[in-house]
Formats: sequence, structure tokens, C-alpha cells
Amino acid sequence: MQIAEPLQIAIEELNKLPGIGKKTAQRLALHLIKSEETYVDNLLNALKNLKIKLRLCNRCFNLSVEEFCNICQSNKRDQQTLCIVEEASDVIAIEKSLEFNGLYHVLGGVLSPLTGVTADSLHIKELILRFEKEQITEVILALNPDTEGETTSLYLAKLIKPLGVKVSRIARGLPIGGDLEFADEATIGKAMINRITL
Amino acid sequence: MQIAEPLQIAIEELNKLPGIGKKTAQRLALHLIKSEETYVDNLLNALKNLKIKLRLCNRCFNLSVEEFCNICQSNKRDQQTLCIVEEASDVIAIEKSLEFNGLYHVLGGVLSPLTGVTADSLHIKELILRFEKEQITEVILALNPDTEGETTSLYLAKLIKPLGVKVSRIARGLPIGGDLEFADEATIGKAMINRITL
Repeated sequence: MQIAEPLQIAIEELNKLPGIGKKTAQRLALHLIKSEETYVDNLLNALKNLKIKLRLCNRCFNLSVEEFCNICQSNKRDQQTLCIVEEASDVIAIEKSLEFNGLYHVLGGVLSPLTGVTADSLHIKELILRFEKEQITEVILALNPDTEGETTSLYLAKLIKPLGVKVSRIARGLPIGGDLEFADEATIGKAMINRITL
Repeated sequence: MQIAEPLQIAIEELNKLPGIGKKTAQRLALHLIKSEETYVDNLLNALKNLKIKLRLCNRCFNLSVEEFCNICQSNKRDQQTLCIVEEASDVIAIEKSLEFNGLYHVLGGVLSPLTGVTADSLHIKELILRFEKEQITEVILALNPDTEGETTSLYLAKLIKPLGVKVSRIARGLPIGGDLEFADEATIGKAMINRITL
């Protein structure tokens, strides 16, 4: 196959991205070749800035441009409620729901003894320090509903409850717009147990 | 939504790529933030080089690093057979089939009166010049099997046949590995008409 080397290399690098197969990588590379110079410049600058301009917030470890993230800097947020999440992407997801107006704490992962993730490699120490410095009265655990998320939630609940803080976990149940027929039995089971009186 | 600006911008730029929706764009941006510096550098360099290092071959308009592309420079290719395609991506697709060992000519599109693509905006003038300079005895038209591809094929056949060159078009029929049940009726019809005696 006589494919031009710069194209070959670009396809290989794009192919390393999650969810980008060989065919998509080739389509993207060929699209960029045909794109206007200014668009490609804008794209490359934007991607470069992800590495240059973004850092982790000094307080909550959310993605931030400055020392403290937008949410930590805002005086419109409820300073007494803390939502604990796994990754910065979870902050984005919860913000989109518009149902939470408190602060966040991003753990940077979940406990996973098998892959060597212990409490020390997560931002748990910093979390405990926040309870000393800040006036937090309620914690919402919003970790993923899988085994590791559950384990980490239980671990954190045990750690936080003795501090006299109200601890809750986001509900499990049928997703809105979902179909009972296609839901797995574990989800239906949880939804049954956690049924709400009308 | 309190999303960090560099992330927001990167998502918007990625979202402009074909087949990359908002969710995929966000996933890719967050992946790059977590990726190693060297990988991001390699990716950005590879994409930048698409614009800097690639040009169109002076003879066939395939993608090329030098004045003439790999295929035009090769002395192992049959110099008498010319395959006419729409885009450089078609060259890659045909090369992968390993069934063609001649030269190419990339039109840069197909005739489309509705969108203002006329013979002058394609590399047809350069194609005709090649018949004067080169010893081409056979032409294979490998344009897409849609209305515009068909129209362009007919147009080119009319132009080339008087030059005493053998002109053919790649076959239409059922794709290998395809299923008769899922093929559209136009494809089945063509496959019927173009049936081959065994």
C-alpha cells in the first residue's frame, strides 16, 4: 500500500484515541487535509490549550484555569453541600442536570485493590481536610453504580458519618425515558426496593 | 453550566469534525487532558504535518509529499492503465484491494450542475493532457455508483473513447460477504443484469 507517510502517521495517532477506529481515523485525517487552514489551526490550538491552560482546582480537583475552579469561586453556590464524584467529567454531567447547586470534590478515581488504587492515590486526604476547614453539613456520594463505586461509597460513608455530616447516595432506578423491557434485572430490582410512595 | 473555557473550546472544535458529536467530542477532550504529554505532542504534530507536508501530485493529483506521488514515482506500476477516481481516499481504498497495478488520476470531485461543479473545476483538462503525453491504452472508471458518479463516468467515456483508448467501469453487484436479503433492489437488479456465466 502506497499511502503518503504524513497521512499514515496521522491515521495511526488518531487511531489511538478512544472510540476512533482505523476507518474513522482515516476519514478524520482526510477531512483535515481538505479543511481550511484556519479551522485546523483553531482545532490544534484548542487541543494544545487543554494541556497548557487546564489544571486541577486546588480545593476540589475539578478542571480549572485558575488556582480555584469556576464552581469553587462562585458565591452563588451552597457552601455547605458537597457532592463527591469520580472524575471531572462527572461534574460536567451533574452540572448539566441543573439539580445541584453545592460544591464538588473530585476523587480522581475509585478504590480498586485489584489495579492498585488505594485511598492514598485518591484525593481522600484532601477531602477530610475540607471537613475541618469548611462548614460542610451534607455530602452526596455520586460515584458510578458499579462494584468499585459502591465499595468506595461505603468506605467514604464510614469515614464521613462520624464527623456528624449527613451522607446520602444518588438514587438507582430506571433511567428517565428508559424502557422497563430493556432494563437489566439488577436495575429493576433496585428500583423496586427503592420505590417511592405517591 | 460552569465548564472550564479551554475544555469548552476544544469540545466545540472537535464537534465540528465529521461524525464527532458533542458527547464524543467531550470524551476525546477529557481523554487528551488525561493523556501523556508526549502522546498529545505526537498527535498534534501529526495533524499539523497533514497541512504542512502533504500536497497534490503534479501528475495524478493524489496526495503526495513530493512533486510526484509514490505511485507515479514507482517503476513497478503499469504505465499504460489509468484508473480515474473521485478523491484521494478512493486511491487508498483501491490500493488496499491489491487488484490494480496501474496509475491513477484523481478528479477532485464529480460533475454536479446543481452545486456548480463543472468540468472546469475538476482535473479533467489535466487528464486529457495525460493522454497526449503518456502511452495510456486502458482507462478504468472507478467513480462512486451514484447519479453524479454515473453522469461523470458517461461524460468521461464520451471524451476518452474517441482517443482510441479502451474504457471500462468497475462492476456493480452484491458486495462480498453481503446478504441478498439486505441488499437494495437497485443493487440486486444490477447484479442480475450483469450476471456472469460460470
